[in-house]
Amino acid sequence: MRLSQTQLEQYQQHGYLVVESYFSRAELELLEAELPSIFGGDPERTVREKSGAVRSVFASHLHNDVFKCFVRLSRLIEPARQILGDDVYIHQFKINAKVALEGEQWEWHQDFLYWHKEDCMPEPRVLTAVLFVEEVNEFNGPMLVIPGSHLDGMIDVDVHEKYRRTSGNGKAEPAWASTLTSDLKYKIDKEILLKLMGNRKIKSVTGPPGTLMFFHGNMFHASANNLSPWDRISIFASYNSVANAPRATANPRPLFIAERNCIALNPLPDAALLQMGVKAGWAAR
Amino acid sequence: MRLSQTQLEQYQQHGYLVVESYFSRAELELLEAELPSIFGGDPERTVREKSGAVRSVFASHLHNDVFKCFVRLSRLIEPARQILGDDVYIHQFKINAKVALEGEQWEWHQDFLYWHKEDCMPEPRVLTAVLFVEEVNEFNGPMLVIPGSHLDGMIDVDVHEKYRRTSGNGKAEPAWASTLTSDLKYKIDKEILLKLMGNRKIKSVTGPPGTLMFFHGNMFHASANNLSPWDRISIFASYNSVANAPRATANPRPLFIAERNCIALNPLPDAALLQMGVKAGWAAR
Repeated sequence: MRLSQTQLEQYQQHGYLVVESYFSRAELELLEAELPSIFGGDPERTVREKSGAVRSVFASHLHNDVFKCFVRLSRLIEPARQILGDDVYIHQFKINAKVALEGEQWEWHQDFLYWHKEDCMPEPRVLTAVLFVEEVNEFNGPMLVIPGSHLDGMIDVDVHEKYRRTSGNGKAEPAWASTLTSDLKYKIDKEILLKLMGNRKIKSVTGPPGTLMFFHGNMFHASANNLSPWDRISIFASYNSVANAPRATANPRPLFIAERNCIALNPLPDAALLQMGVKAGWAAR
Repeated sequence: MRLSQTQLEQYQQHGYLVVESYFSRAELELLEAELPSIFGGDPERTVREKSGAVRSVFASHLHNDVFKCFVRLSRLIEPARQILGDDVYIHQFKINAKVALEGEQWEWHQDFLYWHKEDCMPEPRVLTAVLFVEEVNEFNGPMLVIPGSHLDGMIDVDVHEKYRRTSGNGKAEPAWASTLTSDLKYKIDKEILLKLMGNRKIKSVTGPPGTLMFFHGNMFHASANNLSPWDRISIFASYNSVANAPRATANPRPLFIAERNCIALNPLPDAALLQMGVKAGWAAR
C-alpha cells in the first residue's frame, strides 16, 4: 500500500493525513486482545495518570510479537519511506489509553522538539503513525491539530519554570517523566499559540476504529482530557529516517522511550498480522 | 420576555434550553468592562486554577452594580419564574473564566447534589442561567450535557475517598473548596455515567457571545479543559424558588457560595442594563 500523489500533497500541506478503514475489525480485535497483558505489564515502561490509570505503555513493539509485526507492516513502512525518502526504524512506540473519565490532557507540543532536545535527533525527518483502536469523537479527547503548523519548523521553547526549579529532581520521578505526563516540560504559552495559528485554524481529528493518521514531527498537536464513558486507546508508532539517527548525548532517555539502535525495518506483507492470529489460534488448540 | 410553550417543553424534556442573541453586543461590552476589576478583586470570593489563573469569582451580584442589575433583568427573572412556578432569588452566582490554555475541567456533576448535601436545599426547584460572554466552541471547553438526565432525579454519590481521607482538612484550603475545584468532592464513576446515559447521548453546548442557556439543577453536565487560545468566560446565575430556601445546617458554606437571605428579586426592565451604561458614561464626563 503506497500513498497517492494527492495523499502525499495533503500530508506536505497540512502536516498530517487521515485514512479511514486502514485496519480491519479482525485486525483490531487481534491488537486489542494483547492490551490487557500490556496494560498490566512492565511498570518501568508504564506511565500513569494522576488517578493511577494507565496513560501510556512504551516499547511494546520490542516485547510483544503482535506489535513487533504491527510496526513492520508494509502499509505503515511504505508510506513512511515515501514521505521521509529513506529507510525507517521506530524511534518511539507507545500505546496511549486515555481511559474514560481518567485520561488527562496532552498540552500543545511538537514531538520533534522532545526528540531533538532530549534525544539529539538532528532533523525533523520523522513522522508518527497513529491507529485509532477505538472510535475517536468530540467527547473522548480527540487529537487537536493546527494544520500547516509544521511549515514553521521547530519552535524552540525553554524548559518550563516548574521543571527548572525542581531540576534537582527532589521527587521520586525520574527526570524524563516530565516529558510524558499531562504537565509537559516544554510548554507553549498563549502568545506563541496565537502567533503560530495566525490565519490557521484548530481542527480535531475524529474517526471510527481502524482509522490511521500519519503526522509530521513538527506539527503542533494537543488533546483534552477524556470526560466521556469511552476509552480512547490509540497506538503511536514514530518512524525516523535511518540517516537521521540521534547523536550521542550525556544523559540519554531510556531506550524504551528513545531508540538508539537505528536499523532499517524490513517490511512484512500486510496480511502478516491476520496470519499471526491464525497461527495463535492453531497454537491454542 | 417570556418563554414560549415550545421553549418550556424543550426545557422540561431535555433539562436545558439554549437561546442565541439573548444579550446584545453592547450589553456584553458593558459586562466585560467590569471583569478586570472583578478578576483582580476580592481573593476570598476567587477560586484559582492550579496555574494560578482565575477559575471562578463568586457573588459579584452582591458587590458590583452592573451584576446587581444583570441578575434582576426581566429576561432572566421571568423565565425562571415561569419554569419554577414561584418567585425567585439568587442561590449562587459565579463568573467562570476558563482562560486559554489554563482553564481546567469540571467533572460530571449535578448542581443540585451540592446544593442539597452542602447547603440543605430541599428540592430541585432551582435552575441556572448561563450567559456566554465569549464564543463557546468545540475547542475551548464547552459545557457537555446529557439531555434528559434531570428526569432521573438526584443521583446520590458518596463523598469521594480522597476527601474522606483528608477530612481533617490538613491543607490550607477550607473544606468547601473541594466543591469548587477541578477535582470534585462528589465524583461519578464510569458505571454510573453509562447507566445514567442509557440510550441518551452526550451533547456539547456551543454558541456565539450573547447566547443564554437555562438548565435544571439536576441535569448532569461537565466540561473539559480549555486547550484553545480563547478564554471561555461565562456568567452563571442560579435562581432558586423562594419556597425552596435552604434549611439550617451546622456547617453552612459561606454566604458568597450559598445564599441564605432568600428574598424574592423584583425584576428590572430589560433595558436597565444599557441604561446603566449610559449613566456611567454621563458620570465619566
